[in-house]
Amino acid sequence: MIKVGIVGATGYTGAELVRLLLRHPEVEIRCVTARSEVGKEIAELFPNLRGQTDLRFSELESGELEKCDAVFFATPHGVCMQKAKDLLDKGVKIIDLSADFRIKNLQDFQNWYGIEHSAPELLAEAVYGLPETHREEIKKARLIANPGCYPTAVQLGMLPALQNAIVETFPLIADVKSGISGAGRGAKVANLFAETGESFKAYAASGHRHQVEIEQELSNFAREKITLNFVPHLLPIIRGIEATLYMVLKNKEISDAEIFSLYEDRYRNEEFVIVLPLGKTAETRSVRGSNFVHISLHRSPDKRTLIVSAVEDNLVKGAAGQAIQNLNLIFGLPENMGLMQLALLP
Amino acid sequence: MIKVGIVGATGYTGAELVRLLLRHPEVEIRCVTARSEVGKEIAELFPNLRGQTDLRFSELESGELEKCDAVFFATPHGVCMQKAKDLLDKGVKIIDLSADFRIKNLQDFQNWYGIEHSAPELLAEAVYGLPETHREEIKKARLIANPGCYPTAVQLGMLPALQNAIVETFPLIADVKSGISGAGRGAKVANLFAETGESFKAYAASGHRHQVEIEQELSNFAREKITLNFVPHLLPIIRGIEATLYMVLKNKEISDAEIFSLYEDRYRNEEFVIVLPLGKTAETRSVRGSNFVHISLHRSPDKRTLIVSAVEDNLVKGAAGQAIQNLNLIFGLPENMGLMQLALLP
Amino acid sequence: MIKVGIVGATGYTGAELVRLLLRHPEVEIRCVTARSEVGKEIAELFPNLRGQTDLRFSELESGELEKCDAVFFATPHGVCMQKAKDLLDKGVKIIDLSADFRIKNLQDFQNWYGIEHSAPELLAEAVYGLPETHREEIKKARLIANPGCYPTAVQLGMLPALQNAIVETFPLIADVKSGISGAGRGAKVANLFAETGESFKAYAASGHRHQVEIEQELSNFAREKITLNFVPHLLPIIRGIEATLYMVLKNKEISDAEIFSLYEDRYRNEEFVIVLPLGKTAETRSVRGSNFVHISLHRSPDKRTLIVSAVEDNLVKGAAGQAIQNLNLIFGLPENMGLMQLALLP
Amino acid sequence: MIKVGIVGATGYTGAELVRLLLRHPEVEIRCVTARSEVGKEIAELFPNLRGQTDLRFSELESGELEKCDAVFFATPHGVCMQKAKDLLDKGVKIIDLSADFRIKNLQDFQNWYGIEHSAPELLAEAVYGLPETHREEIKKARLIANPGCYPTAVQLGMLPALQNAIVETFPLIADVKSGISGAGRGAKVANLFAETGESFKAYAASGHRHQVEIEQELSNFAREKITLNFVPHLLPIIRGIEATLYMVLKNKEISDAEIFSLYEDRYRNEEFVIVLPLGKTAETRSVRGSNFVHISLHRSPDKRTLIVSAVEDNLVKGAAGQAIQNLNLIFGLPENMGLMQLALLP
Repeated sequence: MIKVGIVGATGYTGAELVRLLLRHPEVEIRCVTARSEVGKEIAELFPNLRGQTDLRFSELESGELEKCDAVFFATPHGVCMQKAKDLLDKGVKIIDLSADFRIKNLQDFQNWYGIEHSAPELLAEAVYGLPETHREEIKKARLIANPGCYPTAVQLGMLPALQNAIVETFPLIADVKSGISGAGRGAKVANLFAETGESFKAYAASGHRHQVEIEQELSNFAREKITLNFVPHLLPIIRGIEATLYMVLKNKEISDAEIFSLYEDRYRNEEFVIVLPLGKTAETRSVRGSNFVHISLHRSPDKRTLIVSAVEDNLVKGAAGQAIQNLNLIFGLPENMGLMQLALLP
Repeated sequence: MIKVGIVGATGYTGAELVRLLLRHPEVEIRCVTARSEVGKEIAELFPNLRGQTDLRFSELESGELEKCDAVFFATPHGVCMQKAKDLLDKGVKIIDLSADFRIKNLQDFQNWYGIEHSAPELLAEAVYGLPETHREEIKKARLIANPGCYPTAVQLGMLPALQNAIVETFPLIADVKSGISGAGRGAKVANLFAETGESFKAYAASGHRHQVEIEQELSNFAREKITLNFVPHLLPIIRGIEATLYMVLKNKEISDAEIFSLYEDRYRNEEFVIVLPLGKTAETRSVRGSNFVHISLHRSPDKRTLIVSAVEDNLVKGAAGQAIQNLNLIFGLPENMGLMQLALLP
Repeated sequence: MIKVGIVGATGYTGAELVRLLLRHPEVEIRCVTARSEVGKEIAELFPNLRGQTDLRFSELESGELEKCDAVFFATPHGVCMQKAKDLLDKGVKIIDLSADFRIKNLQDFQNWYGIEHSAPELLAEAVYGLPETHREEIKKARLIANPGCYPTAVQLGMLPALQNAIVETFPLIADVKSGISGAGRGAKVANLFAETGESFKAYAASGHRHQVEIEQELSNFAREKITLNFVPHLLPIIRGIEATLYMVLKNKEISDAEIFSLYEDRYRNEEFVIVLPLGKTAETRSVRGSNFVHISLHRSPDKRTLIVSAVEDNLVKGAAGQAIQNLNLIFGLPENMGLMQLALLP
Repeated sequence: MIKVGIVGATGYTGAELVRLLLRHPEVEIRCVTARSEVGKEIAELFPNLRGQTDLRFSELESGELEKCDAVFFATPHGVCMQKAKDLLDKGVKIIDLSADFRIKNLQDFQNWYGIEHSAPELLAEAVYGLPETHREEIKKARLIANPGCYPTAVQLGMLPALQNAIVETFPLIADVKSGISGAGRGAKVANLFAETGESFKAYAASGHRHQVEIEQELSNFAREKITLNFVPHLLPIIRGIEATLYMVLKNKEISDAEIFSLYEDRYRNEEFVIVLPLGKTAETRSVRGSNFVHISLHRSPDKRTLIVSAVEDNLVKGAAGQAIQNLNLIFGLPENMGLMQLALLP
């Protein structure tokens, strides 16, 4: 059994890690930490776990993390960077679900996240944990920068088009919508049911942190510097991200079937990425609670624009599920172990 | 008192007309027709009206419509075109909330709506009922083609940018999201709560009927043939449309304040169009149940793209409210009469 | 014009007062106070008011309240009791939407609300502001204790049965469900969308403060000491209360029609209380955004139990609407002035 | 591997059986039947299954069912009774999720369900499939009448109180609320999102079919004829049932701890029934997507009434999960096999 620790398990991402790892056949959760709740049963905060575990929150500094084979950081940015070196030195693998090690360019990180990086020497080593694009590096990694929720959907939706260079690189538009769990479990008026229910809006329309992360990776795919138009919106649902991606085709004569083939070929061996048949449209509910991504392909009536819809569960493939996929890869387990739950539908 | 009839009052648009007109100080609803419900009290279908009216559904052919000063058609397309000539001949004004008279190009209409037009001779006379762009013609009209819900939001959001020619005309992207009432009151599996709740998806991503209507009007604003990229999505809310509009700026040096001024100037005298201060973001709930449109302005981080978010209540400004605005204009009443309800919030 | 002030306009009840009073033909809002937001435009917090008012939040102590004809307190309990005497002395009428003056028994108040009452000498004078049961006193009152949201629905649903003594007084069961706006606009994890959406639960099942208020009033109707079984639940909707009331009939031979007549007779002259025809069931949406209460009557299959369902909008008839109904009564205006909005449906 | 068939897999209960059985380690789904969809891939209707199975809908009469070890009927009532004898004769076990074999009294069945029973000779043999009360019979059964969704929650919530005779048997009140998936996947206006969202109502308040089923079983527990007051309500959520149960205590001196012990003792060995610690309240989300039932215990302030809140996922413990629990028992598998998913939270 692989012994793991989870730092920051009072948030939704941490809770989702617990939910999934409690049923993972090769993992034992050794500790969950949360400064504010030390000593409390985890089932107090997450009553879905009542009767299923005796785990209690412990302190970050309890010495338990060092005894783990791997530690997940489900913390705000700025925490993992402070603990990473010590844990790595003790042979603990780290899967960081925060943004600390996602951005390779130190200046970009500091501009967008507003803090100084305390472990810049680890940036080069950290592997961006999107298995569909960095699988072999992940297998050998000690430190994983688990992708953001939006970046996962946007990258998987744009990747085949950009890699095959069938689309212009400007403008690239990502109109994305996320369920409210993506905003976290903090007590904010803006995320109350009475403020967000029966409503819809964009937010951060003039700039969101995930943009720089997506641009970094898309630039790799496209082998040129990419600038993205990225507008997130807040959906009155709990889980789910949908990204509608607009890319102008270089050649409007390319057929839908050809585009479909490029996507199919790229993802044929990717168990968690499903390209829907032409004529179908992705829905967030089809992947709710699961680690799957669904991608559907569309064309504007004038044939000039490729429109891609990509959906995921922001807490699973967009966070905890992907982190476990990375764990499986690092420890040589089947990549899908503990991750084959089917979406709840309805 | 202006005597009006409502054809097709079993749908949501018809019900909304009744809700608003029952409280309009200068209007008396004389009849509501609905083939399937003849003789039934309207409060049976719409219990919010219980105790507030004795209206019962009558037959289309009852002869009552001819006695009205104005008739609203809240019917599927294909109905109004059959009745229009007779009513007009009897001096009845018509406000058609269906698509029958929106598209000036007969061929376009027939391509997108799949039926032959039975009153093509009225197409030239029909006035497109968006008061913000056709007010003077509306005042003199006998036959109004009330705009579609999506077209209202998209046009009002793009109008100042296109009229002032600050943006390129390709690509123009409208990523729009609508509450489920827009899909009507028909008994369809796809619109069940259990199919649409806690979910989100695009639909008609490769072509939606409202596209041709928007392109027709935008082409007028821009004084050139416009092709739009228009993708509607289904929101798990009852009322509300949000349109996120992406337009590439011709000159990225234009300041946000300059753009704001263009929008402000254009809508200064439009009571129902509110341009939010820079830094604010439009939300559908801010206009729920009201005839207002809110517009917020944003820029991509690279300054090259103007991003506009426009919101409306699809049943009010997107349908029934706008129809009453047209009625007020035709009959010389204050344009806002009966339409000043504030949005329910929360 | 009646000049009014609103204390505590940052909450949902205060916002609803503003929404309704801005359209009241005989009222002018002179000031809205809110400690935490002094100087800020009210439209900043409530964007549905954007462009509709220039009101800004002022301080409680600004001296403006004293110049009003009437002041509404939409504050937590404990505030109004401190300001009441001064304002009354200056001739200002007070409509208190908090609990400060609802409970006539000082000990009960202190037990359930956990604070000492600072103005017990005003308790006897304060009139319980349910117009359907205290109309004549309200007309003459200086100080109104506006009823709680739950108490309004429960009392109106039980009143005719208890007054006519057709039911036993034990057990009396009120299983009530409220939309989340009833929990207020405070930043609490428990009221986040992600915590309350797609879920349902009871709360305060072993004792809720509204119980003592309901028991006090029901005891008056029944002319004996009533003990109620009252369990509130949290609905994943924004607005709306439904109360399902179970009362054992003294005589199971009484017909449904007889019971219906008792309810009809009691409410015949009550514009805002609609008794639905037998066979119909009350729905919260039928009264959303309106001041109406709908009541439907049912029987258990064994005929021994009367089941009543009463619905209201908790922010309108359950709070702000009722407060305005009281204002109208005090100032001799038509009782329904400014309150005839029809519910949004759908 | 146990080979199973599912009759009526186009509904939500059938789809949930497929979702759960595709991941059951000892079951192979051999066929799914649906008259209206013959030949179509099941993933067309339930896109969460895309890429996870090649199952296509076949005809009821295809001869495949007879080759199964067990067949689930997820059909409207009236179907299973027609096929049961033939299948049983061929050695196939039947788990019927419809009402056909739940009611032992033929007259009661015919009164409430409005059809004549075509296989009354099987009624005596059929075992009521609530494992917590009929486990030993289930293990030996050929024909299981899987309980209704409401009856499961109400029985488990009332059982310890009635078996231990600590409560009066009149009145017994069950105020129950169900998510909309309980209304099925039929195309009905009443179940549209726009009709049920942001709303709440009772339905069938004067008599619901599940009442007779609950009374039959409760009478067994209590060893006397029980009459129940049972009012279902429609919640604007997809999955989840909450039952608030009111029972008058015979002796108000009984302590909360004593009552808790009775519940704890009764369910100590029931893996799927969790009695929450005193002070906690059951929430439907805590069991969403899982086979667990959570029960919380409360007291009215006057101590005279025991209030129990019981929650379940209506499609899992209330239908498909319980059916699989029965399958496991019949075939000697661990009772929890394939059923240990934790609820999605948030």
